[in-house]
Amino acid sequence: MLKATLKSVVLSVVALSTFTVQAAYLDEAQQKQINTLKQTALSSDLAYQIEESLTTEVGARMIGTEGDKRAIAWAVEKMNSLGFDKVWTEEVGHYQWIRGDVEAQVLAPFPHDIKAIALGESVGTGEKGIQAEVVHFKTMADLEAAKPGSLTGKIAFVSYRMERFKTGKGYGKAVGARVNGASVAAEKGAIGFIMRSVGTDNNRLGHTGVTRYKEEVKRIPAVALSNPDADVMVNIFKRNKPVEFYLKVTALRNEIVATKGANVIGEITGSELPEQVVALGAHLDSWDVGTGAIDDGLGVSMVMAATAHIAKLPQRPKRTIRVILFAGEEVGLLGAKQYIIDHKDELKNHTIAAEWDFGLGKIYSMQSGVGEASVPAIAELATYLESLGVAYNKGNKARGQSDMGAVTDKGVPAMNFSPDGTTYFDIHHTENDTLDKVNAEDLQQNTAVYTVFAYFAAQAGVDFRK
Amino acid sequence: MLKATLKSVVLSVVALSTFTVQAAYLDEAQQKQINTLKQTALSSDLAYQIEESLTTEVGARMIGTEGDKRAIAWAVEKMNSLGFDKVWTEEVGHYQWIRGDVEAQVLAPFPHDIKAIALGESVGTGEKGIQAEVVHFKTMADLEAAKPGSLTGKIAFVSYRMERFKTGKGYGKAVGARVNGASVAAEKGAIGFIMRSVGTDNNRLGHTGVTRYKEEVKRIPAVALSNPDADVMVNIFKRNKPVEFYLKVTALRNEIVATKGANVIGEITGSELPEQVVALGAHLDSWDVGTGAIDDGLGVSMVMAATAHIAKLPQRPKRTIRVILFAGEEVGLLGAKQYIIDHKDELKNHTIAAEWDFGLGKIYSMQSGVGEASVPAIAELATYLESLGVAYNKGNKARGQSDMGAVTDKGVPAMNFSPDGTTYFDIHHTENDTLDKVNAEDLQQNTAVYTVFAYFAAQAGVDFRK
Repeated sequence: MLKATLKSVVLSVVALSTFTVQAAYLDEAQQKQINTLKQTALSSDLAYQIEESLTTEVGARMIGTEGDKRAIAWAVEKMNSLGFDKVWTEEVGHYQWIRGDVEAQVLAPFPHDIKAIALGESVGTGEKGIQAEVVHFKTMADLEAAKPGSLTGKIAFVSYRMERFKTGKGYGKAVGARVNGASVAAEKGAIGFIMRSVGTDNNRLGHTGVTRYKEEVKRIPAVALSNPDADVMVNIFKRNKPVEFYLKVTALRNEIVATKGANVIGEITGSELPEQVVALGAHLDSWDVGTGAIDDGLGVSMVMAATAHIAKLPQRPKRTIRVILFAGEEVGLLGAKQYIIDHKDELKNHTIAAEWDFGLGKIYSMQSGVGEASVPAIAELATYLESLGVAYNKGNKARGQSDMGAVTDKGVPAMNFSPDGTTYFDIHHTENDTLDKVNAEDLQQNTAVYTVFAYFAAQAGVDFRK
Repeated sequence: MLKATLKSVVLSVVALSTFTVQAAYLDEAQQKQINTLKQTALSSDLAYQIEESLTTEVGARMIGTEGDKRAIAWAVEKMNSLGFDKVWTEEVGHYQWIRGDVEAQVLAPFPHDIKAIALGESVGTGEKGIQAEVVHFKTMADLEAAKPGSLTGKIAFVSYRMERFKTGKGYGKAVGARVNGASVAAEKGAIGFIMRSVGTDNNRLGHTGVTRYKEEVKRIPAVALSNPDADVMVNIFKRNKPVEFYLKVTALRNEIVATKGANVIGEITGSELPEQVVALGAHLDSWDVGTGAIDDGLGVSMVMAATAHIAKLPQRPKRTIRVILFAGEEVGLLGAKQYIIDHKDELKNHTIAAEWDFGLGKIYSMQSGVGEASVPAIAELATYLESLGVAYNKGNKARGQSDMGAVTDKGVPAMNFSPDGTTYFDIHHTENDTLDKVNAEDLQQNTAVYTVFAYFAAQAGVDFRK
């Protein structure tokens, strides 16, 4: 009882301290403004309308595809129609990759059709496909521990299943097989690599995502099986009989053919410090499966809507708010890398940056990655977000998300908002990434958070640098 | 308050009356036996093991396919190994149908790849596919109301969405479009029929299921779009622009080529009244998508396990317990129709029949369809099932489920157990019908219900006839 009481007292003090932060960075009129903006975003369906427009009028948009070209045109038009002051594109180059189809079957001991999807940028098998015995590894570590030459002429199968967490932290442990599995298997002689999808669902839809080939290692075809298909394989292996497999992948990786995408950038110009940029990021490209509603249509919609809400105020905030819709995130942060090159001299004027590229639930936590001197300003920002259910993680060690991670690694101060990611990896990189998965109310909360953040960072004029 | 109190009193009386049913049909030793059997089934993983075996060693098993042949051999072997006294097969004929693939795209105003699946026994489009404008109908009634000739050269699209209910009653309202839509559209001139899947999920997997062509109406290709794809179509139609569609279906319906399946029948022979049959049904065939874990692997597993539990008793019950695993249920109750022909003279000795072919949750309700004189026996049966959470619906108007519906329509007394079907139509007739959807604990409860029922009906010796 005593312990509980003491804990309550401590909690009360902490809670109280949050409420007693001095509002030193926004004046009374600006405080009223930020609270009005928050209510506007919470009651507006603008972000959802943008999302519906993107998924209906564009859909899938892998870099270099016709869908991506349509997405770029769509984004330029949409930002202009939302009242942005400047909108432009910056070219991002890549090479050609065509997904093609996967045909996969267990031939023996029990014939089964297997649902699988090529990993992003995998090579194909050729028209005849490959037929070989499968060697089963429960984890990537087990595959790594296999003896050199032990997989000669065989197909390697890693069946590790990703765990579900609110934070999405199960992804890190599972994704290594996707990124490196093919080359590790090939080094040991394998002619094909199959793995359980990096995903937490039980749908017969594989999860794609980029795979990387090591230099000087033979490139072998790499596919991800849906979770139920991986289950069947595991159950078959329990019978202790040789498992014969057929795999045909018609993917084409053509590094000679250049393709291109573009970062689409739009801003509302600051009224007093126009050269100082508050950067809101998302990536415009998606995989070529689904309609990219969640990854990253959500991010695209909320940063555009947040900026549009602020653009409707009678006056522009002090700093410029810049929306950067990055190209080619899925295939290796191409847009972010190009942006860092193109804006090298200007990065010092990026006062703070935040991206949305994870989750589909409400934001429940925020953390900064800023200079110590500006931490009190972050504490004030937290007070405006508290009513939205956003807890303030005082760690001050945040990087930006995905593209903005690359940007903030170059010294740009970071803000990171953590949404509930419990079901994110049910959908991630699958055909199921579609509009019906969007919760309109959660998107309102998300947009309100980005709106409040962007306004505060642009209006308060704080130096967030480290 | 008074009302509430009165209601409580009434409820108490009803509850009390349930407990005071005289156990007139089983003697004390048999009552002990039935309760022990119930506990055995509740703690056994036998049904799950059968299900795992069927989905791992066989998988998909549409009538006439290699999978179906393997399923028949598997079922014979499994019943023999489970200690059935007699096991045999009875041939069921059909014609050839090959699913092939579906390629579907919205070409204009916004290009989208569309995920769709051929309806069962649909004809194909030919290699070139068809390209046409789509006409949108919100319901099957709207399609029926379209003017003759109004769809000439066009593709008809019905976007009605099935509603979710515990009882599964939304299916009846939705399935008419699947069964009759193609012919109704063709009568008005359509060259193709596309519909929203009859399903309650949001996965990009279409739901198949049989479609029927009217005599003397041109047969046109018929496919079901996944729910998210139907949503995209509906959103596109909101833009009020002509929607151009491409559809290629490589399905082959070849009524000249005969195929065959078989009813697989196994029984434990009655010790006193061997000619009197308690019939437990399920269907062995599945669609050619998924591994038929739910539809109807669950039924197959639980009726086999229930009979196996009873087979382990020191003595056989009085009557014969017969498991009938019907062939070709999915394409039109073919096995049931054949069974009725093959067993015409013996049907009068089928004392009662029950099937499992719906749901995947716990059984929450039971209803008989028996002669009035035997209703007190059903009331006694209900007392043994009460602890499993099965409420007694006294309507006494039940038919059997699917195949057994056909059998009980011939005068055989029926028992019907209703499981929770809330999520059943998320999975029904899709690639997602796989082992991971099976809840092992629910399957134990289901099996316990069928075990108790079969033992009671075989041992009590009641005449259930109408």
